[in-house]
Amino acid sequence: MDAQVRVGIVGYGNLGRGVELSLRLNPDMRLVSVFTRRDPASLLTVDPDAPVHRIDDLESWRDRIDVLILCGGSKSDLPEQTPSLASAFCVVDSFDTHARIPEHFAAVDAAARAAGTTAVISTGWDPGLFSLQRLYGEAILPQGETYTFWGRGLSQGHSDAIRRIPGVAAGVQYTIPSENAIARVRAGERPELSTREKHTRECFVVLEDDADPDAVRAAIVSMPDYFEPYDTTVRFISAEELARDHTGAPHGGFVIRSGTTSASAGQTVEFRLGLDSNPEFTASVLVAYARAAARLAASGDHGAKTPFDIAPGLLSPKSPDQLRAELL
Amino acid sequence: MDAQVRVGIVGYGNLGRGVELSLRLNPDMRLVSVFTRRDPASLLTVDPDAPVHRIDDLESWRDRIDVLILCGGSKSDLPEQTPSLASAFCVVDSFDTHARIPEHFAAVDAAARAAGTTAVISTGWDPGLFSLQRLYGEAILPQGETYTFWGRGLSQGHSDAIRRIPGVAAGVQYTIPSENAIARVRAGERPELSTREKHTRECFVVLEDDADPDAVRAAIVSMPDYFEPYDTTVRFISAEELARDHTGAPHGGFVIRSGTTSASAGQTVEFRLGLDSNPEFTASVLVAYARAAARLAASGDHGAKTPFDIAPGLLSPKSPDQLRAELL
Repeated sequence: MDAQVRVGIVGYGNLGRGVELSLRLNPDMRLVSVFTRRDPASLLTVDPDAPVHRIDDLESWRDRIDVLILCGGSKSDLPEQTPSLASAFCVVDSFDTHARIPEHFAAVDAAARAAGTTAVISTGWDPGLFSLQRLYGEAILPQGETYTFWGRGLSQGHSDAIRRIPGVAAGVQYTIPSENAIARVRAGERPELSTREKHTRECFVVLEDDADPDAVRAAIVSMPDYFEPYDTTVRFISAEELARDHTGAPHGGFVIRSGTTSASAGQTVEFRLGLDSNPEFTASVLVAYARAAARLAASGDHGAKTPFDIAPGLLSPKSPDQLRAELL
Repeated sequence: MDAQVRVGIVGYGNLGRGVELSLRLNPDMRLVSVFTRRDPASLLTVDPDAPVHRIDDLESWRDRIDVLILCGGSKSDLPEQTPSLASAFCVVDSFDTHARIPEHFAAVDAAARAAGTTAVISTGWDPGLFSLQRLYGEAILPQGETYTFWGRGLSQGHSDAIRRIPGVAAGVQYTIPSENAIARVRAGERPELSTREKHTRECFVVLEDDADPDAVRAAIVSMPDYFEPYDTTVRFISAEELARDHTGAPHGGFVIRSGTTSASAGQTVEFRLGLDSNPEFTASVLVAYARAAARLAASGDHGAKTPFDIAPGLLSPKSPDQLRAELL
């Protein structure tokens, strides 16, 4: 049996917390320390005895860590952190700004190649598992269309947008895939779907005391890009209802490839995620790719990688023999 | 752009025919010839101009073929053909006798390593895509259960078993997954399911003129292994109805991983195939893995491989840059 993979967590929000939880379920891996920009003494980790150190001290941990799991945000943390840390460590991130993946890959690849490290970027579920399904679907059924639906799920960005509206005390937004659109895709219709036809948006809003509900509703549904292109429902609830019913972070969605292999043969490949906790699931994907990253690094396979570059077997703690006997 | 991948098809039943159809949808690949044990002049290929040659002449085609797609059966053809042809060619098969995969892998690996060829075994959908989903699900959600359901689909083996019963003129059998069992799994119940609870079997039977329906029904439902462990429905139909409604080869199924990442967070990963034509879909998977096999061979990565060993990006005709920009 291999020695345990020694893991560092960089950044401790919901995602970092999810990675700590996930490592407890993977006996071949071990948390060495959490690294934070905050005061280590103030951090409440799942395991109160988990070591916590300052991110500025990371350099001195180089010989004690096999892979760093980067749990910062894609907007400002990862574009800087991933290339910078890849110059000294094997790293994994969940960079999810789709449009900027090529430049992120290039920056991380240059750093990792120069340093002789391995860096896996854009793991998680979209990008990540959903991307894999889009690739498998298209490669196997070249004559067809791929559809990605998100939800039902809490969207952090849209919830933030609601909370910036005057008169809103608190609120959350759920993205809801259209059942009708999914049914048409599953039936092999290969429809052309507008943005409005694919998803609807549902908002639960707590008003400030003197707020005008009609004005708040109008401000939400007319917001460009965020809500205007969608059919949006706004429901006003009490602060108690919000606390009782809307504290989770559920999400998920569907990737469907609808294709044909001959005139009479329609073929449908569907992948669905139903997640009670989006950050805990994303964290679980990061941990599996951290295992793969450590193995690639150990075998001398350096540079930046994405889930497209990683043989599935590397994600599993089982040996190739075991995988063939048990899962193939 | 790469030169086209030059493909030979070995064996021309429904699967070989499906490979010929699939190659027409993949412009980066090209059919060089079909190879058969039958009289080449007698073979009706999809494209009447497709070259057909005797399997015994294969050796002389060595320099004109990049990869052979083996379309024989798992029972007697592939255990002999795959290792034997791997001594001279890069090959892909869909060997699907799950219990014998380890010994098949060992035989093919020895031949391929000795010859410096690349051989991908057990592609298709089960083993194949379903196996990949079992692996991803288990690696990402180590605390959970994996469920595989097959159908609704035509089972060739069970249809053959029906046709061997005295009094049966013709017949087909469909395997049907239990909607109730699937609903319980999706709901995160993680039930222990007996064989009888997971699938039912439905038979459509054409009787011989003097046959006793009750005797035939009794012979079917009591057949050990094949039908006895299941709730089996037998419907008697006319030869015309059989020809009208039961000539396709639909199949599919579900792989569901139901897991938890913490006390309050259930997570469900579901993969579903709905196939109008089982052989044409299996053929499409073989063709995508043939592309990967040709690339592995070209890069000097020899020996036997399974879908677990193959980075997803190798299946696609797109470049890594394109894949990152378009699908990640």
